[in-house]
Amino acid sequence: MRRWNGWGDDSIQAHLAPEALDFLQQQLGQPKRPQDASLEAVCAQIERDQPSRFGGALAHPLIDIRPEARLRSSYGQSLGDWIQLRFGQVARVSDGVAFPESRAQVRELLDWAAAHNVLVIPCGGATSVVGHLLAPAGETRPVLTLNLTRLRALTDLNREAQLATFEAGVLGPDLEAQLRAHGFTLGHFPQSFEYASLGGWVVTRSSGQQSLRYGRAENWFAGGTLLTPGAELNIPPLPASAAGPDLREWVLGSEGRFGVLTDVTVRVTRLPEEERFIGIFLPSWDAGLAAVRELAQTKTPLSMMRLANAVETLTTLKLAGHAGQIAWLERYLGWRGCGEGKVLLFIGLTGSRAQVANAQAEALGIVRQFGGVSTGQMLGKKWAAKRFAGVYLRNALWEAGYMVDTMETAIPWGGTTAMVNAIENAGREALAGFGERCHAYTHLSHVYSSGSSVYSTFVFRLGATAEESHARWWALKTAICKAMVAQGGTISHQHGVGKDHAPYLGVEKGAAGLAAIDAAIQHFDPKGVLASGNLR
Amino acid sequence: MRRWNGWGDDSIQAHLAPEALDFLQQQLGQPKRPQDASLEAVCAQIERDQPSRFGGALAHPLIDIRPEARLRSSYGQSLGDWIQLRFGQVARVSDGVAFPESRAQVRELLDWAAAHNVLVIPCGGATSVVGHLLAPAGETRPVLTLNLTRLRALTDLNREAQLATFEAGVLGPDLEAQLRAHGFTLGHFPQSFEYASLGGWVVTRSSGQQSLRYGRAENWFAGGTLLTPGAELNIPPLPASAAGPDLREWVLGSEGRFGVLTDVTVRVTRLPEEERFIGIFLPSWDAGLAAVRELAQTKTPLSMMRLANAVETLTTLKLAGHAGQIAWLERYLGWRGCGEGKVLLFIGLTGSRAQVANAQAEALGIVRQFGGVSTGQMLGKKWAAKRFAGVYLRNALWEAGYMVDTMETAIPWGGTTAMVNAIENAGREALAGFGERCHAYTHLSHVYSSGSSVYSTFVFRLGATAEESHARWWALKTAICKAMVAQGGTISHQHGVGKDHAPYLGVEKGAAGLAAIDAAIQHFDPKGVLASGNLR
Repeated sequence: MRRWNGWGDDSIQAHLAPEALDFLQQQLGQPKRPQDASLEAVCAQIERDQPSRFGGALAHPLIDIRPEARLRSSYGQSLGDWIQLRFGQVARVSDGVAFPESRAQVRELLDWAAAHNVLVIPCGGATSVVGHLLAPAGETRPVLTLNLTRLRALTDLNREAQLATFEAGVLGPDLEAQLRAHGFTLGHFPQSFEYASLGGWVVTRSSGQQSLRYGRAENWFAGGTLLTPGAELNIPPLPASAAGPDLREWVLGSEGRFGVLTDVTVRVTRLPEEERFIGIFLPSWDAGLAAVRELAQTKTPLSMMRLANAVETLTTLKLAGHAGQIAWLERYLGWRGCGEGKVLLFIGLTGSRAQVANAQAEALGIVRQFGGVSTGQMLGKKWAAKRFAGVYLRNALWEAGYMVDTMETAIPWGGTTAMVNAIENAGREALAGFGERCHAYTHLSHVYSSGSSVYSTFVFRLGATAEESHARWWALKTAICKAMVAQGGTISHQHGVGKDHAPYLGVEKGAAGLAAIDAAIQHFDPKGVLASGNLR
Repeated sequence: MRRWNGWGDDSIQAHLAPEALDFLQQQLGQPKRPQDASLEAVCAQIERDQPSRFGGALAHPLIDIRPEARLRSSYGQSLGDWIQLRFGQVARVSDGVAFPESRAQVRELLDWAAAHNVLVIPCGGATSVVGHLLAPAGETRPVLTLNLTRLRALTDLNREAQLATFEAGVLGPDLEAQLRAHGFTLGHFPQSFEYASLGGWVVTRSSGQQSLRYGRAENWFAGGTLLTPGAELNIPPLPASAAGPDLREWVLGSEGRFGVLTDVTVRVTRLPEEERFIGIFLPSWDAGLAAVRELAQTKTPLSMMRLANAVETLTTLKLAGHAGQIAWLERYLGWRGCGEGKVLLFIGLTGSRAQVANAQAEALGIVRQFGGVSTGQMLGKKWAAKRFAGVYLRNALWEAGYMVDTMETAIPWGGTTAMVNAIENAGREALAGFGERCHAYTHLSHVYSSGSSVYSTFVFRLGATAEESHARWWALKTAICKAMVAQGGTISHQHGVGKDHAPYLGVEKGAAGLAAIDAAIQHFDPKGVLASGNLR
């Protein structure tokens, strides 16, 4: 059963090694273990304090008004969401959830909502980390969540053109399983893969770990159907077009404000003949940066580059357990010039056997110029095996008394190090205001010829209460968002904007850009049926 | 000096070999050599029939109202444009041309036009083949052409991020020369490279011959400034962003309807260590199709794929002259299994020496599976040397009595052959209605994993008069456009929509899509200052 107040399936329990807990305690001080609220108590609270407004004249046979369904569709996976759920202090949940099973039912519900002055919030796998699913503050209309996860069929597969059409609510593992049966893959593997939906990836412009080969959502989203409150936008899956504005781009990043995405055609690939992940150490952050920049700018055909800074590298090694093996590895790396301050780079190699061999030779030739030391596939296999398990550590950390948040941006080369420093310092300073410490570390998860993403993780102690915990989190998040846009970065490289990042959108888009987005919202949704407060 | 009624510099004279003329005469019948109108006569006609309305209260110091300047900025390179110019029957030219030298002057002219009820048509290198530059039929306002080609400076180069910012009017060769001085290239080489402008490439979503490596305009356009009638849209050159709609995409394909693009930041690359073009024959069209599809779907890192069908292959060999060498080559190919019906594929290999060697081995390994026979770099070098010269042949063909038109689309795999047949037949049937023949042939200029472009050439005889020639051309073009959209193709893969293709845009975009584009036009340009009739 999926956890209602944490990540993933409740049969999977991540464990922190004693040395990992010792390490964090040294960094952050002794934590207090929290006491989680029970699902029953929270549901009772919803029943009592927020009775559904869907009843009587506003009843609809497709809408489920049970508290647990409402609760599960109103929260994502942001730290703010967790704080509310774990402490049992839920703010606003939707009045009901519909699980449409056809495009016609989505249309019916949209029309019904428009006719009855109901706000609609579309929802996929409920993995948002930027507050997409909460009803907007101050909203007085009843709120209907449209949970699309029963729309999960592969409805068309054009093997020759490698185009697959799915209903938009299909979740990552289900999508890959349906494709794998035919020998194909989409290759989109964000960390939230296990629960995130295809439609969610499109409307938030998601990027997977191997986007270097398979592309960001922009690259593999070929077309589909968006049901707007008044119309139906159908986008054919052309390989390319120079015929005016590309309407795919009006769906990508629309975050449920222009319409509900019901059908998605994606560009797929045959399952690769071979795949390898190789761990490479470099002597310093600057050497690592220079190496990944060179790999990207020479268009070396890798499927992934992921460069951890020195603190993340150290943290990874510490949290891995296996202190004996790590000590041996560090001795070897020291001999090879990678001592204190060393950084860990993972590269992915995917394709035919010849491509993998060629790309590996090209890549290792380049990283060696920067002092890189390959450790072969040993660490890479470990990373790949745990690529979707790492996120379960958040559960274990919470239970040990620690909060974890991650923040991500992207910036042209030249600004990377300043951005990393600004973000990590902002987090530390924000918590210092509470007399708290913060363990901050960073990796570049996506590398482009003109720049990279910057993905930072912050571990800090829970407060004694929901309010205290929330205050710490919000201070940290606010400080980091301000630092990101001040440094010229985007407010989101891969998570979307939601409500939490909406105040910062204007720095990137400018007044004219915001006005254009508002005009599009006004065009597609003049009555505000989808005015969830996400994006704008 | 640039030709006013044909392609390119008038010091460059393309010649057709006698056997080429014989070949065409066999295909099409004996042509009649036309008598071109003189520039002086056409300018006198403009002076007499279309006096400029910019004078008196409507005078502006930046506006040139001399007939030749007005003429040169009102026509592009479509066959319809040529017919008007060569026969000296010009329809509507603009009332004046301004050559702004700064962003401030563009703003001043836009504001002046808005205040004085003047229509503005932006213009770059005047290479449009879809009628962008003509004043719209029925327009009663005075028309100002904004020729941006004096805005040509490289204003910023971030070597580390490989981002170059240019003023938008810079032409291809000037842009490449400015970059090459710093060791970089944009790598965007459409056939119109010699005269096309950077801004034009962006607003029409241009695609160059080596887009497989360097990307389409969508891929290398990183950001810039669009002056709309009421505002200024500034787009920062982020490497990637998941923050809502991507405003770059509101500039790409806007064809001057949302604003005037004044500054463009592009993603550039270091000049490659090595570049090769290799000519490969395959035994049949089906074998060629299967080979390029496999190369694309395996992501073999080529910089170009260009597959000619059998008639284009034959025509290329016939027009090349060198009958003796060709006969020898054909004997050799016959022994290797490529006889009648053989097709010619050019692949481009660009990058480091290692990348070129690896990609060549991978590519040749794949094409061999489909019966491909490499002829090494011999034909490839010839192709590369003449890549921008071929378009000069249009001049020589016209002077010999033949018109040439090209039409292009893109479609998912599975539809390619039906599309080629439909287009070529539509052209032949349209001309049969006039008792004329048509020599039609096709190549795939751009290949993607999910499909390809289809680029067809039509050679047919001039009529005795402008009207007769126009009637033939328009019948051909109309029949082909209808065939393209009926087959599910886009109305433009690389040339934009302009006025000529605007009637067909709705098939691709749908009613909801057109309404959204119209809403955006209404938002950016409520007064219709830029209502040129292009796109919509």
